[in-house]
Amino acid sequence: MKEVENMGLVYEMPHEVSYYECDLTGTMTVSMLVAVAIKSSEQQSALLNRGTDYIHSIGLNWIITDYLISLERLPRVGESLVFKTEAKSYNRFFCYRSFWVFDQEGQLLVEIESVFALMNQTTRKLARVQDEIIVPYETEKQTTIKRMESILPVEEGESMLVTSQFYDIDENKHVNNAVYFQWLFSPLGFDFLTTFIPTKIRVRFEKEILYGSQSQSVFEKKEEDNHVTTLHEISVKDEICCRAQIEWKKIETLD
Amino acid sequence: MKEVENMGLVYEMPHEVSYYECDLTGTMTVSMLVAVAIKSSEQQSALLNRGTDYIHSIGLNWIITDYLISLERLPRVGESLVFKTEAKSYNRFFCYRSFWVFDQEGQLLVEIESVFALMNQTTRKLARVQDEIIVPYETEKQTTIKRMESILPVEEGESMLVTSQFYDIDENKHVNNAVYFQWLFSPLGFDFLTTFIPTKIRVRFEKEILYGSQSQSVFEKKEEDNHVTTLHEISVKDEICCRAQIEWKKIETLD
Repeated sequence: MKEVENMGLVYEMPHEVSYYECDLTGTMTVSMLVAVAIKSSEQQSALLNRGTDYIHSIGLNWIITDYLISLERLPRVGESLVFKTEAKSYNRFFCYRSFWVFDQEGQLLVEIESVFALMNQTTRKLARVQDEIIVPYETEKQTTIKRMESILPVEEGESMLVTSQFYDIDENKHVNNAVYFQWLFSPLGFDFLTTFIPTKIRVRFEKEILYGSQSQSVFEKKEEDNHVTTLHEISVKDEICCRAQIEWKKIETLD
Repeated sequence: MKEVENMGLVYEMPHEVSYYECDLTGTMTVSMLVAVAIKSSEQQSALLNRGTDYIHSIGLNWIITDYLISLERLPRVGESLVFKTEAKSYNRFFCYRSFWVFDQEGQLLVEIESVFALMNQTTRKLARVQDEIIVPYETEKQTTIKRMESILPVEEGESMLVTSQFYDIDENKHVNNAVYFQWLFSPLGFDFLTTFIPTKIRVRFEKEILYGSQSQSVFEKKEEDNHVTTLHEISVKDEICCRAQIEWKKIETLD
């Protein structure tokens, strides 16, 4: 995992892992890990007077378009963690924010690179990133659009039907980004999820999913020794809403 | 809501409500409220050397059979709460534990009465409650079995199909009790859940639901002015696993 180098303002949030943030093996779920990370960015924004109320007052909402999550290991129940976050750079349409999760000994467990964009609350279309929103974060402005690594398509997959329920929906009235990790992982099944652990997760959100939509979560598994790659697509009426590529390692091969 | 009167040891746990514990209106979900309450009882048990490791070492697991939840109001995002819990009494097969949730001003928001039982890890059958498990809680022993109020059956209902996913399962390898609240509430739909708020929730768990089971969550709505009662049954293959009766109040009628 690479060294952490900070350019903008860094915000730190302590967090103790509860049993209800973990799966039956006592390992923190990626869904909860991402939800807690987002909480740290919301706390930083509130501190800089750029919280939800401010963003809503100018008719906008934050949405997330991409994640790249690199995992040394997933946290365990009862661990005291520190979440650090920093808005790294931005351009006309996208903001690049990183998160780091450290254990009690200061070891870096997880790094999350994410891409945020602004959605107009009325038209639900992307809005331009205005400088006044970003200035307090002391973030670097760039003129280029940074591309995250690409995701391989699913060629032939197994699928599961998912219906978006009331508690999957956030204040944007669409499925919350952290919920997708449950939808991506669940079809892999009990045996796989208790044998393998993710080491790298690349997710791209293409289109929002609204309340009550029926989606197909399709995955394809590519195995090679103890190393597995899964490719994922979540679609509503044959339109792809989310794509992902996940690298896995057999649990026994970790320290 | 009645006065809190303590007989056994009382344990207190502070908790701040995060956005990911709330629905899209910023109201804490009953599922998360119950999960946090259970965390407070786990912390008390660990403190008294009666934690999960101890219970497992004698081949047992705690399960929950009943809840009666009385709500003055549900907590909101950002609130600083105090969860209090006490093991009130026990008999040969059941332990009665109460939880209280207070806001920052010390107002009682929620009271939860619950019934715990012990399950043999091998046979998955109820085990007798041995005194040595309970002594440290300074709980009153009783010879009678306390009955919680009864639940009306569903006569004619609407239903939703739910499949238990990997992340619904807890260390008992069955659907976690807090997950049922999502399964009970979700079929009521967006409009109902943003218009009504529960004031009293009675839940009885009859039979455990294992990983991958397909369940039907059925509900019937009985309306009278601004007051609604919903009756619920969750079944696997026509066998009832969970029954519930919930009283609701229109959100506007709350102060």
